[in-house]
Amino acid sequence: MRAELVAVGTELLLGQIVDTHSAYLSRFLSELGIDVYYHTSVGDNRERLKDVIRTAQSRSDLVLFTGGLGPTEDDLTKEAVADVLGLELIVHPPSVQAMETLFTKRGLEVPPSNYKQALVFPGGTVFSNPNGTAPGVAVTHERTTYILLPGPPVELYPMVENEVRVFLERLRPSNEVLLSHVLRFFGIGESHLVERIAPMIRDQANPTIAPLSKEGEVTVRLTAKAPDHERAWTLIRPVKDTIVDEVGQHLYGVDDDTLEVVVIRALAEKGNTLAVAESCTGGLIARMLTSVPGAGSVFPGGVVTYSDEAKHEWLGVSKEQIETDGAISESVARSMAKGAMDRLDADWGISVTGVAGPDPAEGKPVGLVYLGIAEKGRQTSVHRLSLRGSREKIQIWAAKHALFILLERLKKGETTR
Amino acid sequence: MRAELVAVGTELLLGQIVDTHSAYLSRFLSELGIDVYYHTSVGDNRERLKDVIRTAQSRSDLVLFTGGLGPTEDDLTKEAVADVLGLELIVHPPSVQAMETLFTKRGLEVPPSNYKQALVFPGGTVFSNPNGTAPGVAVTHERTTYILLPGPPVELYPMVENEVRVFLERLRPSNEVLLSHVLRFFGIGESHLVERIAPMIRDQANPTIAPLSKEGEVTVRLTAKAPDHERAWTLIRPVKDTIVDEVGQHLYGVDDDTLEVVVIRALAEKGNTLAVAESCTGGLIARMLTSVPGAGSVFPGGVVTYSDEAKHEWLGVSKEQIETDGAISESVARSMAKGAMDRLDADWGISVTGVAGPDPAEGKPVGLVYLGIAEKGRQTSVHRLSLRGSREKIQIWAAKHALFILLERLKKGETTR
Repeated sequence: MRAELVAVGTELLLGQIVDTHSAYLSRFLSELGIDVYYHTSVGDNRERLKDVIRTAQSRSDLVLFTGGLGPTEDDLTKEAVADVLGLELIVHPPSVQAMETLFTKRGLEVPPSNYKQALVFPGGTVFSNPNGTAPGVAVTHERTTYILLPGPPVELYPMVENEVRVFLERLRPSNEVLLSHVLRFFGIGESHLVERIAPMIRDQANPTIAPLSKEGEVTVRLTAKAPDHERAWTLIRPVKDTIVDEVGQHLYGVDDDTLEVVVIRALAEKGNTLAVAESCTGGLIARMLTSVPGAGSVFPGGVVTYSDEAKHEWLGVSKEQIETDGAISESVARSMAKGAMDRLDADWGISVTGVAGPDPAEGKPVGLVYLGIAEKGRQTSVHRLSLRGSREKIQIWAAKHALFILLERLKKGETTR
Repeated sequence: MRAELVAVGTELLLGQIVDTHSAYLSRFLSELGIDVYYHTSVGDNRERLKDVIRTAQSRSDLVLFTGGLGPTEDDLTKEAVADVLGLELIVHPPSVQAMETLFTKRGLEVPPSNYKQALVFPGGTVFSNPNGTAPGVAVTHERTTYILLPGPPVELYPMVENEVRVFLERLRPSNEVLLSHVLRFFGIGESHLVERIAPMIRDQANPTIAPLSKEGEVTVRLTAKAPDHERAWTLIRPVKDTIVDEVGQHLYGVDDDTLEVVVIRALAEKGNTLAVAESCTGGLIARMLTSVPGAGSVFPGGVVTYSDEAKHEWLGVSKEQIETDGAISESVARSMAKGAMDRLDADWGISVTGVAGPDPAEGKPVGLVYLGIAEKGRQTSVHRLSLRGSREKIQIWAAKHALFILLERLKKGETTR
């Protein structure tokens, strides 16, 4: 099946927003085994939109639109598709009712302009929208299927996951399943990883093996096609095992895992807690950890200590030590990690001190970073990194390195309880 | 002039990367007064790419391509354009030389496959690439101009800013300039702001007035067309003044300002320092402040205190107080802000405690947030917010609110020195 995506909205053509929907829908369709050949963005202009629809009609079996289903005169997607296909839109009473319920709950009348959102294609499909007033609509006409979806992410994503997925699974010509399994690595570059598994990549067939690097991490996506889920997994498992044999020491998680989620899970499994002391990462580690709901059970807190005063007051690092060794030093990293752990009576403490740039500090080069890992009842260890890139990149890499090293220690079972 | 953008690369169609280039180039072209009517993404496939080029040729005066200029067989953009236009590519000796210099510097031979990157259009323009081996190329053929640019951002952005800008300024039919000025607001919704300046929006001509909302902020972009920069500014100024008269209390900055940059600038101007105590924002405020290079001169540090123990140890909030009033309370917000300020002997302290969700806490609803603002020698004030949305949205709004309120206080000149 040949698919293409059309994103509708003048704000896209002015560069006011980035089209992230097309990447999201492409991944979604690729997991269903549907090939996407084109993305198009077009403005809220009826004639140009109709031209795009005609072009899509001539080359694709499936066309997914996002945006242009709102209540204003500028929202034209449904009207333009109906025009090109020569169809009359009809009222969909359940959508009218859903809209009236929504407005009544807020103590408002439905504005007359909103009623056009409840118009749908005759003989088509309607996807309900619990998060807004525009239902999604689909229609198949002369062997091409058109799916029109609302633009706001909070409306689009649940509709795609809950209703469009089922619709497309039924539409697919074969009853094969596609199973994807993602391996997540840290501490190894993409080219190095690819080299280590080069023969497998060269001879790949089913599953396919797709490496990708992003923000210091590398993922390898294995995708198998089989008549059912179990047989797909049977194809993936030996390939995964071989990759893990080769580069397993860098594997930190699978599928939707993130370093922070995996660290929090590992701490929770041991009933351990973690305190954090950050200098050059400026709160990034705390921010990553607290983005995970429920982080509070393993993360009592952290400090961001830019000044010597803060390192002294909150972590007990002596001013003499900072004067002698420098704030960016192995010894201060050690004292910071231990200080954070001791102050909060935590099981672990991690610290980061270094030069994120853009300028050198204390005569030390941009990218020099010390990570401290303190563990109750053990010696505190310090790791020295030399990172390259922008301020933001150095901060992200340093934060992830700290979490990855902690995770390695947690996995080794070096606990204190 | 009607322009369109074509992004080339199969990774776009698989959703492995998001097409941010098209938004960037759209903003760039709109500032030059060039209208963009379509964005297309297409894979590394010669026939489909040629179809896209033919479509663009039939409807646009200017076509900008990104990607597909690399050395591999998959990199086809230049070859496909040459095919469609019936042109023979020719060797460009300066590009060959630049490439050889680059490789020699690294002690390497030029791989034979790289030489195709030095092929250009006869009678066209070449944009040098100091950051890679693929020059950009342009050619005008039958009244349509084609510009082909490399995909890696580190190569694309400088080439666009330095060379493509000059090329396009010459290409424009008139010698008008376009001047944009962006007003940045916080604490007012887009619809409310639009309502307040509705007559101006309705009657807009030159400058145009474009409101946009993002992450709790609203921007208004004023864009004027005039023969020169000074006359464009003369058109913008009275419109800006009228908007500021109407909603100026929500204006925090202009153009590329961010809340954190403006706060740091305001603190630095007074020679003041700021300490931060965060609970439900989990380090986000510290992270925002430390993303600004040089933040250290006004930001000695902050704490992230999730546990009662951390609030006690690092901020001196008594456990009895937390037990009596709850950690999410006006009194604890007050003690946290004052505690952070006092501990670091700072001029200001801000604190956030609340429920970011997804679940209620202490029997208090998701979205309830207390912000404390402490100032040396003055009473600490506390602001209560009821926010709505996801965990991430509540965290971002709470952090920005805290910075905005601090900024208002800083602007009032309520300093202690």
